Amino acid sequence: MKKVLILGSTGSIGESTLDVISRFPDRFKVEALVAGKNVEKLKEQVEKFKPKAVCLVNSKDKFSFKGKFYLGLDGLKKLIEEVEFDICVSAITGSAGILPTYWAANKGARIAIANKESLVCAGKFIMEAAKKVIPVDSEHSAIFQCLNGESRKNVKEIILTASGGPFRKRKDLESVTPQEALRHPNWDMGQKVTIDSATLMNKGLEVIEAYWLFGLELEKIKVLVHPQSIVHSFVRFIDNSVLAQLGVPDMRIPIAYALSYPERLPLDVEKLYLNLYGLKLDFEEPDLKRFPALKLAYDSLKSGYPYPIVLNAADEVAVELFLKGKIKFTQIPVLIEKTLQSSKFKEPSSIEEVIEIDKEARKIAMEISKCL
Amino acid sequence: MKKVLILGSTGSIGESTLDVISRFPDRFKVEALVAGKNVEKLKEQVEKFKPKAVCLVNSKDKFSFKGKFYLGLDGLKKLIEEVEFDICVSAITGSAGILPTYWAANKGARIAIANKESLVCAGKFIMEAAKKVIPVDSEHSAIFQCLNGESRKNVKEIILTASGGPFRKRKDLESVTPQEALRHPNWDMGQKVTIDSATLMNKGLEVIEAYWLFGLELEKIKVLVHPQSIVHSFVRFIDNSVLAQLGVPDMRIPIAYALSYPERLPLDVEKLYLNLYGLKLDFEEPDLKRFPALKLAYDSLKSGYPYPIVLNAADEVAVELFLKGKIKFTQIPVLIEKTLQSSKFKEPSSIEEVIEIDKEARKIAMEISKCL
Repeated sequence: MKKVLILGSTGSIGESTLDVISRFPDRFKVEALVAGKNVEKLKEQVEKFKPKAVCLVNSKDKFSFKGKFYLGLDGLKKLIEEVEFDICVSAITGSAGILPTYWAANKGARIAIANKESLVCAGKFIMEAAKKVIPVDSEHSAIFQCLNGESRKNVKEIILTASGGPFRKRKDLESVTPQEALRHPNWDMGQKVTIDSATLMNKGLEVIEAYWLFGLELEKIKVLVHPQSIVHSFVRFIDNSVLAQLGVPDMRIPIAYALSYPERLPLDVEKLYLNLYGLKLDFEEPDLKRFPALKLAYDSLKSGYPYPIVLNAADEVAVELFLKGKIKFTQIPVLIEKTLQSSKFKEPSSIEEVIEIDKEARKIAMEISKCL
Repeated sequence: MKKVLILGSTGSIGESTLDVISRFPDRFKVEALVAGKNVEKLKEQVEKFKPKAVCLVNSKDKFSFKGKFYLGLDGLKKLIEEVEFDICVSAITGSAGILPTYWAANKGARIAIANKESLVCAGKFIMEAAKKVIPVDSEHSAIFQCLNGESRKNVKEIILTASGGPFRKRKDLESVTPQEALRHPNWDMGQKVTIDSATLMNKGLEVIEAYWLFGLELEKIKVLVHPQSIVHSFVRFIDNSVLAQLGVPDMRIPIAYALSYPERLPLDVEKLYLNLYGLKLDFEEPDLKRFPALKLAYDSLKSGYPYPIVLNAADEVAVELFLKGKIKFTQIPVLIEKTLQSSKFKEPSSIEEVIEIDKEARKIAMEISKCL
């Protein structure tokens, strides 16, 4: 019986994780649930899964239950110290997930990582601290599955697939509204990641995530747009053999795999019917002119380790401003690029310095946004 | 440095094996070459690769070289006894490959198996005897690669892909000539396997091969027609995750993998360009009415272990008669079915009994062919 801590239990990945766990009650026990401020949903989850501990990070609306209640980020740190768990599902949205993921990694638990920002900003420290990090993102899970039993030195390149987002074929990107950008063609996800999918920044962050996760040179990490989202990624080996992982777009598959690896769970999800799909699989190079965010991500890592932190911070600021109607869709990458150009940081030597750089970069991005 | 024995060096797989070995002279040494009767080609190979021993199984045209020359099947048995080798590439065509493969398996070498008949007829004995059997067939190599690091109990099904052969869309199969049947759309192979591809018997033999190779129940072994021959096979796991292996149709990829596993070799073959292909991948259920040979293969295994031997023997007889113009294309499966119906054997308890059943079944098939 594996004890599970879920960071971000009321979000999309958190809920899917609980769905998987509810199907395998003899294998997993929900030990602790951590949410931001969605008290109502957390209460429902607590009633159903009866954890020993819960934490609300951004709210003070305690409720009574048979267990220990923690509040705030300090409370969360204490929870991670006091509760025993085998697996931490890291599914807090945005850079708020960095510190908790790092703390959990230091406890020696398996990290099932869905929070991109943890790896983008602090991959160096988290990979060092964690016993085992298993990706939950469908693309990284695909690559992880294809690399099973393979040596890194046999890898020629990995190819992350990208849906291309809702605007792959749209000519006028300037007039895109938040409502339009929030409609993703294939995946049902949170707001931030949906906007990131529309700008291709999501794929940019995934490239950096893959860099830390798989320990591969940046030149070996490629992206192909694949609108059908059936092939979740490819690995090409040095002998020109290519492995691919395919499936219906259902996050419960990679979540279950991250929980049960190296085993697999008999998961009753929609089956990929290879014959019925008539499988027309399109692949095309991403258009970096129309979607410069992806190029910015590569460039940030080429500029040196602190700059992915700046990229990510500026993106969070930009997406928030876009959702509030304060900047245009096409200004998201502009704001990120200007923030990168205006920043000068040295490589962080601790997780605290990562958080510092993140904060500073946000301030710079906010300042720049006023002059856009 | 791995010492390699090639059974069937002058055939298509044998030549591709030598091509691979010639690219990695610091990793592999050709220790012995075995051919049927193509003396000229064998002589060329001997000059280039300088093996310690050679054997001609079906010819007495000895030539002089710096090494030991063996003749006939008895000579081959002696060669296998006397020569030391780490890897045996089993690439003799047809059931003539069974005994030599079995002898090599008993020597404790890795068997890189391209000779389907060895596994179809004697998989039980060869899998027991061999330390490690690694498939060379592109489909089985694909599955082997997808299963790397995975436990058998995680497998829901394996899906062998089939090109469908040259007559997938042809209405009138009765009038097919040997010349037409010998033109395969994607792969350049020997005569027997090319005809077997046209009848789908090749896929039937591969199903039985997979049964022995991967130790899976017959119900878990499926076939999908995939005319482009880009996806070499699929594995669907119990969590509904699907892995696929893809590549250009070049046998040097699976051959190199079988030689170097678990490593991979940097093989300079044509790269599969995922973006240029515009990858239209078609998959359809095989048409068992028009191509009954595939169904016969499943049925033979369901009837019990000796019957795949009968199936294979009858198929070899039928293909030979078809190539000689003595029976029609559509009579190939008819002859096989009638032979299966007229045969009654008990499960062989030794490799010698396998060879006995093979001989008997051929006689029965020849008799039946006279009354078609």
